[in-house]
Amino acid sequence: MILNRVVQYQGQLDRTFAALSDPTRRGILERLGRGRATISELAEPFGISLTGLKKHVQVLEEAELVRTEKVGRTRWCSPGPQDLDAVQRWIAGYRLMLDERLDRLGELLEGTKGEQG
Amino acid sequence: MILNRVVQYQGQLDRTFAALSDPTRRGILERLGRGRATISELAEPFGISLTGLKKHVQVLEEAELVRTEKVGRTRWCSPGPQDLDAVQRWIAGYRLMLDERLDRLGELLEGTKGEQG
Repeated sequence: MILNRVVQYQGQLDRTFAALSDPTRRGILERLGRGRATISELAEPFGISLTGLKKHVQVLEEAELVRTEKVGRTRWCSPGPQDLDAVQRWIAGYRLMLDERLDRLGELLEGTKGEQG
Repeated sequence: MILNRVVQYQGQLDRTFAALSDPTRRGILERLGRGRATISELAEPFGISLTGLKKHVQVLEEAELVRTEKVGRTRWCSPGPQDLDAVQRWIAGYRLMLDERLDRLGELLEGTKGEQG
């Protein structure tokens, strides 16, 4: 069961990082952060086809970064349930590890100076 | 010149997010955060071929997340100059936007309640 959770967590990180690796998809999220929009409203500023935009929205939906809802003939897009907490924590953890590594390196260098002086 | 910088910034985000979208590559970074390692040392715990591992290291190098140095016949890998500051800021900005959106939504709902009450 724990292994299952690890696999799910890694899969979520994979999908989220991959979804964020495209400037149009990041642009869509930035736009939706200001309020919901239709597929056509999203496509216009990026100058891409509706089909191209729908593919990007689908990738974002699979990563739960966007949710869509059909009202009549219009599909509305808004931010999904994924709040980027997991990826933010992964990045923060890695940066902390780098900082500690630099601290240890600094201590090592200080030690060497002491020996030389 | 400003446009150039925007393109460079977007390209850096693209490469970084794509590099982080694979569990083996994230594992390599976690391992290197504890200290430098050779290609063989990195390959072992992941149970993948040296060729497979080298490809992952190359993707990480292109994103400046890993630097490698050849000493004699051994190639050492260590964390690169990219400290994930740009991606962390993008994520924090998006989350802030979501929070503000929820706040506005909350205010709207409060307003509706007032009207009804």
